[in-house]
Amino acid sequence: MNHNTNSSVRLLISCQDQPGIVSSVSTFLHQYKANIVQSDQYSTDPSGGLFFMRVEFEMLEQNFEIDMLRTAFSDVAQSFQMDWRMELKSRKKRMAIFVSKEDHCLLELLWKWRSGEIDVDIPLVISNHPDLKEQVEAYHIPFFHIPVTKETKQDAEKAAIQKLLDYDVDFIVLARYMQILSPEFVGTFPKKIINIHHSFLPAFIGANPYAKAFERGVKLIGATAHYVTNDLDEGPIIEQDVLRVNHRYATEQLRVAGRNVERIALARAVTWHINDQIIVHGNKTVIF
Amino acid sequence: MNHNTNSSVRLLISCQDQPGIVSSVSTFLHQYKANIVQSDQYSTDPSGGLFFMRVEFEMLEQNFEIDMLRTAFSDVAQSFQMDWRMELKSRKKRMAIFVSKEDHCLLELLWKWRSGEIDVDIPLVISNHPDLKEQVEAYHIPFFHIPVTKETKQDAEKAAIQKLLDYDVDFIVLARYMQILSPEFVGTFPKKIINIHHSFLPAFIGANPYAKAFERGVKLIGATAHYVTNDLDEGPIIEQDVLRVNHRYATEQLRVAGRNVERIALARAVTWHINDQIIVHGNKTVIF
Amino acid sequence: MNHNTNSSVRLLISCQDQPGIVSSVSTFLHQYKANIVQSDQYSTDPSGGLFFMRVEFEMLEQNFEIDMLRTAFSDVAQSFQMDWRMELKSRKKRMAIFVSKEDHCLLELLWKWRSGEIDVDIPLVISNHPDLKEQVEAYHIPFFHIPVTKETKQDAEKAAIQKLLDYDVDFIVLARYMQILSPEFVGTFPKKIINIHHSFLPAFIGANPYAKAFERGVKLIGATAHYVTNDLDEGPIIEQDVLRVNHRYATEQLRVAGRNVERIALARAVTWHINDQIIVHGNKTVIF
Amino acid sequence: MNHNTNSSVRLLISCQDQPGIVSSVSTFLHQYKANIVQSDQYSTDPSGGLFFMRVEFEMLEQNFEIDMLRTAFSDVAQSFQMDWRMELKSRKKRMAIFVSKEDHCLLELLWKWRSGEIDVDIPLVISNHPDLKEQVEAYHIPFFHIPVTKETKQDAEKAAIQKLLDYDVDFIVLARYMQILSPEFVGTFPKKIINIHHSFLPAFIGANPYAKAFERGVKLIGATAHYVTNDLDEGPIIEQDVLRVNHRYATEQLRVAGRNVERIALARAVTWHINDQIIVHGNKTVIF
Repeated sequence: MNHNTNSSVRLLISCQDQPGIVSSVSTFLHQYKANIVQSDQYSTDPSGGLFFMRVEFEMLEQNFEIDMLRTAFSDVAQSFQMDWRMELKSRKKRMAIFVSKEDHCLLELLWKWRSGEIDVDIPLVISNHPDLKEQVEAYHIPFFHIPVTKETKQDAEKAAIQKLLDYDVDFIVLARYMQILSPEFVGTFPKKIINIHHSFLPAFIGANPYAKAFERGVKLIGATAHYVTNDLDEGPIIEQDVLRVNHRYATEQLRVAGRNVERIALARAVTWHINDQIIVHGNKTVIF
Repeated sequence: MNHNTNSSVRLLISCQDQPGIVSSVSTFLHQYKANIVQSDQYSTDPSGGLFFMRVEFEMLEQNFEIDMLRTAFSDVAQSFQMDWRMELKSRKKRMAIFVSKEDHCLLELLWKWRSGEIDVDIPLVISNHPDLKEQVEAYHIPFFHIPVTKETKQDAEKAAIQKLLDYDVDFIVLARYMQILSPEFVGTFPKKIINIHHSFLPAFIGANPYAKAFERGVKLIGATAHYVTNDLDEGPIIEQDVLRVNHRYATEQLRVAGRNVERIALARAVTWHINDQIIVHGNKTVIF
Repeated sequence: MNHNTNSSVRLLISCQDQPGIVSSVSTFLHQYKANIVQSDQYSTDPSGGLFFMRVEFEMLEQNFEIDMLRTAFSDVAQSFQMDWRMELKSRKKRMAIFVSKEDHCLLELLWKWRSGEIDVDIPLVISNHPDLKEQVEAYHIPFFHIPVTKETKQDAEKAAIQKLLDYDVDFIVLARYMQILSPEFVGTFPKKIINIHHSFLPAFIGANPYAKAFERGVKLIGATAHYVTNDLDEGPIIEQDVLRVNHRYATEQLRVAGRNVERIALARAVTWHINDQIIVHGNKTVIF
Repeated sequence: MNHNTNSSVRLLISCQDQPGIVSSVSTFLHQYKANIVQSDQYSTDPSGGLFFMRVEFEMLEQNFEIDMLRTAFSDVAQSFQMDWRMELKSRKKRMAIFVSKEDHCLLELLWKWRSGEIDVDIPLVISNHPDLKEQVEAYHIPFFHIPVTKETKQDAEKAAIQKLLDYDVDFIVLARYMQILSPEFVGTFPKKIINIHHSFLPAFIGANPYAKAFERGVKLIGATAHYVTNDLDEGPIIEQDVLRVNHRYATEQLRVAGRNVERIALARAVTWHINDQIIVHGNKTVIF
């Protein structure tokens, strides 16, 4: 795993399934002196469905240009009408984190970031409450307090969007940010907002899932990381996990126990997003 | 664990929480020369909620009478207004199994029964289809085919109830029996019918949960064993379990994979019921 | 997943990593009108380690000959000095099962076989005890009782090998067969014998792992499915799983609980072997 | 769960099993106006083994004295030759943390401490390296750097013991402290030192378990929290957990993934110790 990360590239493809895709892609890469390190593919239905592929390769020539490679590949892509992107592993994505008052998901991400487990830049944290300011700034990350009320919501979102543009953010993580984003906001960052919902979706959509879980007497509680769309808690699921509970857990105990599964599911989803392992199609995800 | 099972007794209690319950129960047992082997209790709220208790004890006198002990205990029970029952471990419960065409849950129970893992009698199996007749009879268990159509449903249920009474059944397991039971049927066996639902309830209530799970793109599928009430899939949950899946699973693969989690969750629920480990209160279960 | 299985082929490759392998393989397949359905690869070290690949493809021409395709591919294989095999998905492997007295692993395999979950032929079952004869024959599978004592072990193995050859067996599953096989036997079926060991290897190698687990006071028990080599319980691990236990489990309870994890781990390993998903290298496995 | 914690008491008992223990204990508690909130017991063998019990109760009288209650109970205890202790829930234990350079276990404990998930005081952190000083002091906890070399080990341990005495510590957590403690040190804090070992014990005892796990090709990695004795990695196991891995994990990836299971297993063990849920007997633990 001690690759030369400067020359590592990830190629993600989706298109109609048809013969010759893999052959064309791998021949292209061979011509451009790329060594395929890992390759995954998936067809929804081999007799004519959708085709998804992720290839990780290393350029053997030291001074190659990713943009030249993209231009070269666009011919291959066009012949198969591919939806595709090519990402340089060494270019760190810029991740904004939104929080409210709870710190467990935030701290999980900050800890994994500082320890190098997730290879990302965190240019800023935005919150509708000032509570976590000190903790964020201890990591030398700018913290912006943008309060949200019913009346100021539109302006608050505008201010947040401006910050995200100023800081040139690639994607956004809602780390227990307890606000529903407007369609305008979501539309500005399509497939680029990851939320952690504190239930095993589609069970317990909406507010207070732990109270609902307590009422229903479930024996497992869960958490779901998903991309945000305009349908509340209905976006493409990236990761889910659960935790065993029993009759001794009141709502508060469920909430405390649930933190552990929330932060783990969110951290996995964020890792996969950063590593370009996710392709969204319709309301689902393919995780390579 | 090589107790003398002839003299092993299980006492299950629920009542309003109040001081002195444990003391009274254990003093009673001490007076009657019972050695407490295991004791569990749970209070919903120590400052005045519900109290639940399960005690497993052994009678040191060889020729004691369970009915005499019950009569003696009824005084203690009355003073605390207990809802209670006292069960002889050596008296095997009589379990009826209802099936349709799928055999995995049935076979799991039959295997555990024959291997002695679950200590129960299985006097009969009832099915609305003849398909599993040969398999059941290989275990020397009577198999009754009672077809069910929209028109015959009422008569079919009557015939089934008659069989259950004839065979003196204690409780019923719906091992993937794909029929909804009428309120009359359910009312005849309150808290005595265990169903396995092939989803992680309350997600995907009703028919075709695997098709719904596929549509939603979940990353875990589940199964839920619960007592049957007249609210479809809304009875008290006994056990739940899940299994990791991914984008490669079409509905059919989910269905096949799900079998493994269905049979495991159902077998656990049945085991706990047999061992008198479950107290139902409202729409929830306490599992000791 | 409703492929035409007649024309589905799996190609497994291991060789020294070097540029152009994937390109050559996929170009070859494209030339022969094969549509790649799934493709996985793995390199131990991209800068010059081992390379492993599994490709599943479908031949678009109806009447192709697998042997012709193998001959054609051998040129590609030779140029990269590949260790490789090409398997027709429609050709069912022939699996022999060895048992002693415990039936849970046997029944798990038989149940999955009859339900179509594992796509295999089971021409015979061999046991050193007669106990499971009736159960096996109920599935219309020949059962051979070959007793083994210290004195007769060599002859017994010879008789077993002869049966395996007579029935043209592809691989062998030791489903809790409590005998250690001789180097001669193991050498006759290299990488073709799967054993289930009732512990989380390398913990508790050898006899009585549950007694050892009880002594050590572990909080999880496990099971390990592995290929058999001449080093006891040290062959390449295929699958492992665990189950949570607690202080209430005596050795016997560990043994009973452990059955559930043994049969699940074994069934997964057998499934992967049948589906040509395993490449053994050194003392490890790559599972695609 | 909003008990009046001032008057909550935990009583832990181990002794030879004999009739009347539960009755005597509960009658005693009833006399002293204690309301039993939770009670668990366990007998290794009901016909004459060991008996373990944990009772959590609330004193209804506001101004009771725990020492008076202890004195009163000692008569009951003596008559059954009990090994016992009675702990006031409101008295926070004082936990010292030992670390080296890795921060994940430390941070997990600090986060759970600050969020109130674990109800404990952390008077100091000791390390043989200065690396984590800043992080610890950000939590306003004294950090002591006590370097350890072969030559200075004895003096370093003396200095550490002195600090632990000065700060009146109740127990010690080795949160990836990579030093082996001397018998003198261990003897000073019997059953009061919790270590996290980064493997599923008894597999991979000693140094470099992830390298050994990689060599063996295991499919799950684990972590084990245990009390420290003078037999390396052989003390009573408190908690174990595992994580699924595959052939793509080199030693370094195992090490990174393992962090997640280490911190979770350790945090659970520490929580149980703090809540007086653990009774050590011989080389095992009973967890109530």
